[in-house]
Amino acid sequence: MTLDDLFLLTLKDIYFAERQILAALPKMAKAAQSDQLKQAFIAHREETEGQVERLQAVFEALGKRAQGTSCEGIKGIIEECEELLDGVKESSPVRDAGLIACGQAVEHYEIARYGALIAWSTAAGKGDVVALLQSNLDQEKKADTLLTRLSNSINSVAATAA
Amino acid sequence: MTLDDLFLLTLKDIYFAERQILAALPKMAKAAQSDQLKQAFIAHREETEGQVERLQAVFEALGKRAQGTSCEGIKGIIEECEELLDGVKESSPVRDAGLIACGQAVEHYEIARYGALIAWSTAAGKGDVVALLQSNLDQEKKADTLLTRLSNSINSVAATAA
Repeated sequence: MTLDDLFLLTLKDIYFAERQILAALPKMAKAAQSDQLKQAFIAHREETEGQVERLQAVFEALGKRAQGTSCEGIKGIIEECEELLDGVKESSPVRDAGLIACGQAVEHYEIARYGALIAWSTAAGKGDVVALLQSNLDQEKKADTLLTRLSNSINSVAATAA
Repeated sequence: MTLDDLFLLTLKDIYFAERQILAALPKMAKAAQSDQLKQAFIAHREETEGQVERLQAVFEALGKRAQGTSCEGIKGIIEECEELLDGVKESSPVRDAGLIACGQAVEHYEIARYGALIAWSTAAGKGDVVALLQSNLDQEKKADTLLTRLSNSINSVAATAA
């Protein structure tokens, strides 16, 4: 296996992951109590559509067909999120605190994967690919920062909820 | 479910995760070709032992028994790592590039979980618990930064490997 092979494998992994996240975000938006949190998930879903397109452009730049590979990491993280939602009743502010934690676990998974893909394509001198991946990484980091900001007020309310 | 319940559930999740990581790190150290990377995994295993002890102190501060809950997120990430190692032959520098990516996916999972636990215990005014968790988070971030630093030279070698 060459570094190009490892890159392609990880690209297929994050491509699968982004499409799982596309499916999960509307459910997270629906479950959110806070309007700001709901809007954050809806806006990030739109961003994620653009990210999937950028990944398709990366496959194209490599002359490969856009294709996902089942990604156990993101499946596990989303599964934990669903278990959590099942365990917290709909009207509880604690649910939003949990949703933020789910969202941030997803963002950090993506940050790690894009970090590796960018490092490998930089080492291989593929500047066009690096630029596409960097746009996705920047959006994930911004989404993570926004969730941290929203969590301050949401956690204060959740801490006093019975 | 209260925020305290959510905290305890997530604490059990990261306690399970840290112990899975304790078991995985010696395998990662053994698989690493680069001496620096091998040493980084060995040193982080020692740190992880301290992290498990700090988590036990958090359980104690809450008057609860230290206990893990099966964590699908970390299981998925470690499973992906093992699949990768099976696919790359032992003598290849590409293997080290993959090991770093695995290590960073693990670190980011932990960074997300500790971030949530710290936010919740801060909101609940539990300063002693915050301090213990912050020590663990600082070590995970340092470990992630070290892996990024090591990846620069390792990826350059891997990029030219057949």
